[in-house]
Amino acid sequence: MSRYPGFAFDILHRDPASQARLGRLTTPHGAIETPNFIFCGTKATVKGVTPDQLRAEQTDIILSNTYHLMIQPGAEVVAAMGGLHKFMGWDGPMLTDSGGYQIFAMGHGSVADEVKGRRTTTREKTLLKITEEGAKFRSYMGGEHLFLTPEKSIDIQRKLGADLIVQLDECTPFHVDRNYTARSMRMSHRWGDRSLAEFERGGGLSANGLPQAMYGIVQGGVYPDLRKESAEYTKDRPFFATAVGGSLGAHKEQMVEVVAMAMAHVHAERPVHLLGIGGIVDIFAGVRLGIDTFDCVSPTRIARHGWALVPGVKGERLNLRNGRFKSDPEPIDASCGCYACRKFSRAYLHHLLKAEELLAMQLVSLHNIHTMNRLMRDVREGLRTGTLDAVEQRWVWRE
Amino acid sequence: MSRYPGFAFDILHRDPASQARLGRLTTPHGAIETPNFIFCGTKATVKGVTPDQLRAEQTDIILSNTYHLMIQPGAEVVAAMGGLHKFMGWDGPMLTDSGGYQIFAMGHGSVADEVKGRRTTTREKTLLKITEEGAKFRSYMGGEHLFLTPEKSIDIQRKLGADLIVQLDECTPFHVDRNYTARSMRMSHRWGDRSLAEFERGGGLSANGLPQAMYGIVQGGVYPDLRKESAEYTKDRPFFATAVGGSLGAHKEQMVEVVAMAMAHVHAERPVHLLGIGGIVDIFAGVRLGIDTFDCVSPTRIARHGWALVPGVKGERLNLRNGRFKSDPEPIDASCGCYACRKFSRAYLHHLLKAEELLAMQLVSLHNIHTMNRLMRDVREGLRTGTLDAVEQRWVWRE
Repeated sequence: MSRYPGFAFDILHRDPASQARLGRLTTPHGAIETPNFIFCGTKATVKGVTPDQLRAEQTDIILSNTYHLMIQPGAEVVAAMGGLHKFMGWDGPMLTDSGGYQIFAMGHGSVADEVKGRRTTTREKTLLKITEEGAKFRSYMGGEHLFLTPEKSIDIQRKLGADLIVQLDECTPFHVDRNYTARSMRMSHRWGDRSLAEFERGGGLSANGLPQAMYGIVQGGVYPDLRKESAEYTKDRPFFATAVGGSLGAHKEQMVEVVAMAMAHVHAERPVHLLGIGGIVDIFAGVRLGIDTFDCVSPTRIARHGWALVPGVKGERLNLRNGRFKSDPEPIDASCGCYACRKFSRAYLHHLLKAEELLAMQLVSLHNIHTMNRLMRDVREGLRTGTLDAVEQRWVWRE
Repeated sequence: MSRYPGFAFDILHRDPASQARLGRLTTPHGAIETPNFIFCGTKATVKGVTPDQLRAEQTDIILSNTYHLMIQPGAEVVAAMGGLHKFMGWDGPMLTDSGGYQIFAMGHGSVADEVKGRRTTTREKTLLKITEEGAKFRSYMGGEHLFLTPEKSIDIQRKLGADLIVQLDECTPFHVDRNYTARSMRMSHRWGDRSLAEFERGGGLSANGLPQAMYGIVQGGVYPDLRKESAEYTKDRPFFATAVGGSLGAHKEQMVEVVAMAMAHVHAERPVHLLGIGGIVDIFAGVRLGIDTFDCVSPTRIARHGWALVPGVKGERLNLRNGRFKSDPEPIDASCGCYACRKFSRAYLHHLLKAEELLAMQLVSLHNIHTMNRLMRDVREGLRTGTLDAVEQRWVWRE
């Protein structure tokens, strides 16, 4: 793949029992083993923790969001400061998304999570108009009108300078019909071609002169023929990698079906990222379908509300605000080696949460970050040794 | 001072040009050099930073607040978890206050800072009644009525288990008259005797069986004769150390006068703590009057609002929210060795503040903590080498 110098994806081992694979994704900022989890550093920070803490909890790769950064501080500022890696003090592999997801998901006013079929509350609509040219929306900070096109998205991502970048697409929510989904998907394909063309025009280099590599996105909603068409679109274009996006259905079973529709037709030798999915049970399902990387705000978002991920526990997590932890001298998880578990009791974390102390958010975030990284290490070890079922039994609670 | 096993205060050097002195304060959790600054870990955490980060920024000693901890999580919980040191993961010297300051300052409804003559906004009154027996107040969490007496304060501080504890006093605000101040001060002296008696009854040991040492408090408002009377009261009683509290006047010049009134009569061989003062210029003034330790919420509180302490700058600090830092690639303070200054630009911190990111609070707090510790190190070095004036010139901006 000489089109992407400095990048490689090597499949090291294939699981005989599923589509799962063990791989190595190489970028100009280092290589990671896959399957792996990409932590969300939305506004150029994984909320509440330092880059050194991320490393100490064995994090390999993070992402930042183009939508948020184009509004604050602006891509020009990040470029002037030497790019996102230098700006935020992260020297490992990094991805930026295209901005599309947030424009559409936040912009529909009702649907930050409607892509997943959830959430019924309404927010102020910030999406103003979608045309063939691009998407017009209102800044959530100053209220001014902004316009994002495929060319602009790539230009911004070039200034941000992450290793892995993503084509602009329209992220269709769950409630739209087949016709809308098909029309939108084909526009996303045209946006994909424009994204690739803009990428070529820039020589595939960031503003700092380092090579970048681009993901194409598979849309198509819950419709098998559309998912096939979209997967084949990405396969036929010179993307470095593939991302599966859009509506994955209303529930977990449908998510697996929809991802399978896409995975049957994506380029088999390119890394595949599943956008916005990070539940433990979903990760095992995704890995068996051949997904190489995942991302989700959930591990750090739930941490800020006091939910700690614990292997094998019903619902995948403990609510540390629960009164039963008030005098509990045990760590969150005796088998965990994170800073919070090595140093503090559930009673202390419960107290910090009740007292609404900032440190609670930091410590539970560290725990959840460590736990996700441990999960992915266990998954890789399971693949390496043919014991993925046993790993899943340890991690996933079953009745 | 065999009454206080495991504790000592050694004066190592006296400044020929002032009352300042260099000392060593020894506790069962280690010794600190004085003058020093005690960071506020109000609710069993210095807000937003871990104990390891405190150590990394060269912190020697912290305090926690009895008032907050008796409400949440309660002294029984802390005792059951092995005491405050173990609970919050801090193994160095620690102080708890008596609970009095918050009951009275927060309780007067208008005067968290009125002790210092500031703040005019009103809060809900939580102080219900002060009698000779003690103070009745409402919990700011559940609203239930609580009653704090000298005996209870000492009992709670025994359960919390800090090294240094403080007698209960009534902290008189700025607006009360001389008669009230005098009556209140004499009641505080009686509360001091009751605190000492309760301390003796407990054998001077924490619930964990470690020795503790008690501070008496000098009250007396802005009145020289009352300050003298109160200083002599503390001197005549078997306190380990002295704290100067209450109203220190309406402005910095009066603060110096009032502290001087007390310092002329306190026990000369005991460590003296100045309650609630932490401005850089005030610290130099206090040190020259013979103050050994200071505490103030200010360094970490202003950090959470984006104010970074910088030596020699007008107003002692920079407002990192200011637009002029938007593209500033320099660290907060090029002469500073804190984590934030070693790793991040002003532009990044400015961005985090604008984006209301948690990490901003953590990083600016680390910087301010480091800077206060560096200030105190410089002060001690100035005393050791007879260069305190030069140190002050570097740290304090003058027109």
